[in-house]
Amino acid sequence: MTGWRDRRILELFGIEVPILQAPMAGAQGSQLAVAVSEAGGLGALPCALLSPARMDAEMDAIRAATKKPVNVNFFCHAPPHADTARDAAWRAALRPAYEALGLDPQMPLGDANRAPFDATFCALVEKWRPEVVSFHFGLPETALLERVRATGAKIIASATTVGEAVWLEQRGCDAIIAQGYEAGGHRGIFLTNDVAMQPGTFALVPQVADAVKVPVIAAGGIGESRGIAAAFVLGASAVQMGTAYLFCPESSISPLYRGALAEARDDSTALTNVFSGRPARGIANKIVRELGPLSPTAPEFPLAGAAIAPLRAASEQAGSTDYMQMWSGQAARFGRAMPAGKLTKTLAAETLALAR
Amino acid sequence: MTGWRDRRILELFGIEVPILQAPMAGAQGSQLAVAVSEAGGLGALPCALLSPARMDAEMDAIRAATKKPVNVNFFCHAPPHADTARDAAWRAALRPAYEALGLDPQMPLGDANRAPFDATFCALVEKWRPEVVSFHFGLPETALLERVRATGAKIIASATTVGEAVWLEQRGCDAIIAQGYEAGGHRGIFLTNDVAMQPGTFALVPQVADAVKVPVIAAGGIGESRGIAAAFVLGASAVQMGTAYLFCPESSISPLYRGALAEARDDSTALTNVFSGRPARGIANKIVRELGPLSPTAPEFPLAGAAIAPLRAASEQAGSTDYMQMWSGQAARFGRAMPAGKLTKTLAAETLALAR
Repeated sequence: MTGWRDRRILELFGIEVPILQAPMAGAQGSQLAVAVSEAGGLGALPCALLSPARMDAEMDAIRAATKKPVNVNFFCHAPPHADTARDAAWRAALRPAYEALGLDPQMPLGDANRAPFDATFCALVEKWRPEVVSFHFGLPETALLERVRATGAKIIASATTVGEAVWLEQRGCDAIIAQGYEAGGHRGIFLTNDVAMQPGTFALVPQVADAVKVPVIAAGGIGESRGIAAAFVLGASAVQMGTAYLFCPESSISPLYRGALAEARDDSTALTNVFSGRPARGIANKIVRELGPLSPTAPEFPLAGAAIAPLRAASEQAGSTDYMQMWSGQAARFGRAMPAGKLTKTLAAETLALAR
Repeated sequence: MTGWRDRRILELFGIEVPILQAPMAGAQGSQLAVAVSEAGGLGALPCALLSPARMDAEMDAIRAATKKPVNVNFFCHAPPHADTARDAAWRAALRPAYEALGLDPQMPLGDANRAPFDATFCALVEKWRPEVVSFHFGLPETALLERVRATGAKIIASATTVGEAVWLEQRGCDAIIAQGYEAGGHRGIFLTNDVAMQPGTFALVPQVADAVKVPVIAAGGIGESRGIAAAFVLGASAVQMGTAYLFCPESSISPLYRGALAEARDDSTALTNVFSGRPARGIANKIVRELGPLSPTAPEFPLAGAAIAPLRAASEQAGSTDYMQMWSGQAARFGRAMPAGKLTKTLAAETLALAR
């Protein structure tokens, strides 16, 4: 596909369409990544919820299905501090929800299963050599980062402020994802935890583009061709879209979640920490409203999620979205239930048509 | 000036440049409005802090200085309920700040001086017949609105969600200001008070443009030509810019405020209710951080402002921005200290150059 004036990201990653599919842990695997990459965009495999064995299998599936570049994504949060008093306060806060769903508020819990990037995952990066490796919540320690760089992978990461973008560029990132306030899922915020100061996409993208020399990938509230074209006008060289791809058959979200997304409007979401301990944008349902959206009681990321997991499962089993985790950005309204490859090509064609 | 593809707002208001100067009560008067209107944009006179006599004098000054269209802006909040317990709790919360500035925490207070649109102001609209009348916080009662309409004024108002935009269109607004989360000053929010759900400009503008038939004016985080051009791509027919005009010599803000704006970055502001009782975006200084940014104690709009006024005055007199009210959007970084007429023409020329 030709016609893109700014080809920096296309050439950096070796792709044809300047659309990155946002890695969405828990909502997709290799199938979505393959479909987007095959269509000329950059598909992504989110590894935050995968075991090393599962990541290995997913990479095997991707490499078997496409020869196109792929992005492999990791969280790189610091391991949390255990805090039994806070855990107990959290369980006490969740007691009414447990009781509403007929669950034992004292039931034993599993682990909060979001693992940061480590030497084991790094060895798998060295094995599979993904063309792009992306990080959320900053960057891993220098030795691991250098090992990733040595594989030849292009390294990108999310910035939620100009300060974070400059920090990432100084540490050698090849491109910066400018993640505006509108974005669904976890905010990449890592230099502070002050979400009240987070800039929206419209303000963030041009200020990041002015502050760094590397190309900028705009994310947050981009749902269709007008958004893609506008991101370019603001100074981006590509966009990253997540929510739009949740509507595709290749995403693994439940029918209930799919139904809630189809009804989501511009003001249906909020930044909440109740599901994981870190702020993330999702549909504001009963649990978000009752405990948050931002709860001072929620344990440190990812520990808050352990006591939430039984609620989420029971809620879905009961056919209710009340206690489910349903990440979404503010542009879900534009979602189209279309195969991911077709969606990627359609968005590209519509954007080029708009620019003409 | 020619070259604007979307001429809906230009023709509706009879202006030449699709840039509206945002009305900024307390920060500007007729001088800024005249400069912008003379340059082909739409200047605005904010009346929320003016007495009827003062509004009359300002309109006299505007009509003497320009024959171009002007926008006259009013707040139309419901009068607050007196709540002496809440007032007392608020004064108690402010006690440390009063003591830090050497003020008596029990000193008598003036009135919170933001007046809603009423029959007296309406009579002045009938006298001066401004070409555009804009409202913030919804619309006035039907009888007053009909009197405004009968003057021939085009009526516009702020929407912070698609729901508010549709509500305003149904009541006959001639255009809708889509005010994104990034915007400085008071949020126009009026159908709910849930600021956690407010969409950013990037998500809001196209969704409003799809939902209403009248033209859309994008506001929030628009600081320079890339923002103006991007707003058009998203579906807007014009933009409204506030913070950019605060840098002009025609704004009446203090040197301290001007200095703080010059240093403001993408993440320097927060939505706060501490200055008035309603959420508004301003630079996050000491008082915003200590009491807010969103305080559950702050009395209803505009009552919270009465006890804040002495702090603001004393802070400024002491040469400190710590307790000052400094409204700003998230794109202050793009501010240029340029006369408002020149700024308007420069922004227009730069936007047209970008589009070519």
